[in-house]
Amino acid sequence: MESQLTQIAANRCFGGWHKRFRHRSAVLDCNMVFAVYLPPQAESGAKSGAKSGKVPVFYWLSGLTCTDENFMQKAGAMRMAAELGIAIVAPDTSPRGPDVPGDPDGAWDFGLGAGFYVNATREPWAKHYRMHDYVVRELPALVEAELPVTDRRSISGHSMGGHGALVCALRNPGRYRAVSAFAPIGNPASVPWGEKAFERFFGTDYAAWLDWDSCALLGRATEKLPILVDQGDADSFLEKQLKPENLQRAAEAAGHPLTLRMQPGYDHSYFFIASFIDDHLRHHAAALLAD
Amino acid sequence: MESQLTQIAANRCFGGWHKRFRHRSAVLDCNMVFAVYLPPQAESGAKSGAKSGKVPVFYWLSGLTCTDENFMQKAGAMRMAAELGIAIVAPDTSPRGPDVPGDPDGAWDFGLGAGFYVNATREPWAKHYRMHDYVVRELPALVEAELPVTDRRSISGHSMGGHGALVCALRNPGRYRAVSAFAPIGNPASVPWGEKAFERFFGTDYAAWLDWDSCALLGRATEKLPILVDQGDADSFLEKQLKPENLQRAAEAAGHPLTLRMQPGYDHSYFFIASFIDDHLRHHAAALLAD
Repeated sequence: MESQLTQIAANRCFGGWHKRFRHRSAVLDCNMVFAVYLPPQAESGAKSGAKSGKVPVFYWLSGLTCTDENFMQKAGAMRMAAELGIAIVAPDTSPRGPDVPGDPDGAWDFGLGAGFYVNATREPWAKHYRMHDYVVRELPALVEAELPVTDRRSISGHSMGGHGALVCALRNPGRYRAVSAFAPIGNPASVPWGEKAFERFFGTDYAAWLDWDSCALLGRATEKLPILVDQGDADSFLEKQLKPENLQRAAEAAGHPLTLRMQPGYDHSYFFIASFIDDHLRHHAAALLAD
Repeated sequence: MESQLTQIAANRCFGGWHKRFRHRSAVLDCNMVFAVYLPPQAESGAKSGAKSGKVPVFYWLSGLTCTDENFMQKAGAMRMAAELGIAIVAPDTSPRGPDVPGDPDGAWDFGLGAGFYVNATREPWAKHYRMHDYVVRELPALVEAELPVTDRRSISGHSMGGHGALVCALRNPGRYRAVSAFAPIGNPASVPWGEKAFERFFGTDYAAWLDWDSCALLGRATEKLPILVDQGDADSFLEKQLKPENLQRAAEAAGHPLTLRMQPGYDHSYFFIASFIDDHLRHHAAALLAD
């Protein structure tokens, strides 16, 4: 079988490999790039004790304006991933390419680099903006077919990607073994970033809005996967866009286990993510590597 | 006394602070920006046991095209610096500003972002390009006067910055307690990058060239500070620009302790640096924190 992946970069890192691949996405109807970190265990199988040399996958969804590169270059996650024997897959944050419409006003908080990990229903967005199906189905199927990884998955992300991670886990019971988020947009249906995106993607069908809102989804979740959230209290987007208190209230009302850690003095940057990524990787590993 | 530093960024990171400062450099005759990481011990003094709360400083010199930001964002060094109680100072890689001449052809390997950490003697370069004096004298004096650090210093760097670190240590006995380098331009007087820069900075005064060449300086060094060098064997600049074998030969001839670690499969990127930065920080800490 011919590979669907074209490798465009490969860097040795902590005894494993950081690689970038280009591929055609049928779901998004465009070419996409994603990054992967394969720990040393994925090559030799020696440290993991697995004869196959296959490792579970931690999916990372990045925030507004990011690509597959930000997390891989700035989070300092590979050291712990190599130690634990976990692969990392980082998709892009939206469909891309000359045929994909961006923000009509050229803004950075909608469209290209800002797909919000939903399946849009309104044109011109619905043709390409199906990041949820891409992240949850198409990309894992491709990764699991072509790279040395198992079908054990977990998911995390930052800001818009934190929203994406929570929604992916809450909408797809049984698909992920662990979930966490950094400074997520936990209640997008009630904040400006989310309102702008959802109005374009779904129009005034507010029931659809709630299908992509973690606070609403928590009330319906049948699977009670424990959620770990870190949030800096000096984050300039905290009050207007992030509202972790709404997420916490929804989790409490639903009896859903959520640990919200307010981190004093931390902002919205990758310096914040790097400071706590090891905790998240250990949280994910406990579930991914359990017998 | 009024501060000479204007803080332009501050991010909480691993319990300490990443900060960026702008200041006027008299040596370089322009405004400069540098970055610092202050570990938690620099605030409280608690973990270090030092009443003053002052910590030693690891200076990092970056490579061609970099600024103060690359290492701080991509090396993943803060985690270990916070654990060890060591500050990091990362200067820019050249003088900057509208009055500073860059490469006449607009190339990226000379001039702006490519100051080679020397004191130029030829105009139009000599007026601004005095990065050696800036890095060795002016910046440490400023940092030690205004930030919670001691005068215990060590120095490391990457590529052009690896060359800079070795030259700073070899030319200034007693000034640094430890030195190391990642993929350094160890013999600049004999490779294209160095030849281009040195011809412009010093003309055909080849004796001056050797004053800034680590291989030549090793032959004259009175202080035998042990040198740690990591070099990827898949580095695309290895044979033409880096020539670690020349450095090793010069160290052997001089009886200078040098550990050259050839790292199989690693390239010239920050993925390589991140993979081994902890080893370097421990190497520096052993000297910086010794009684």
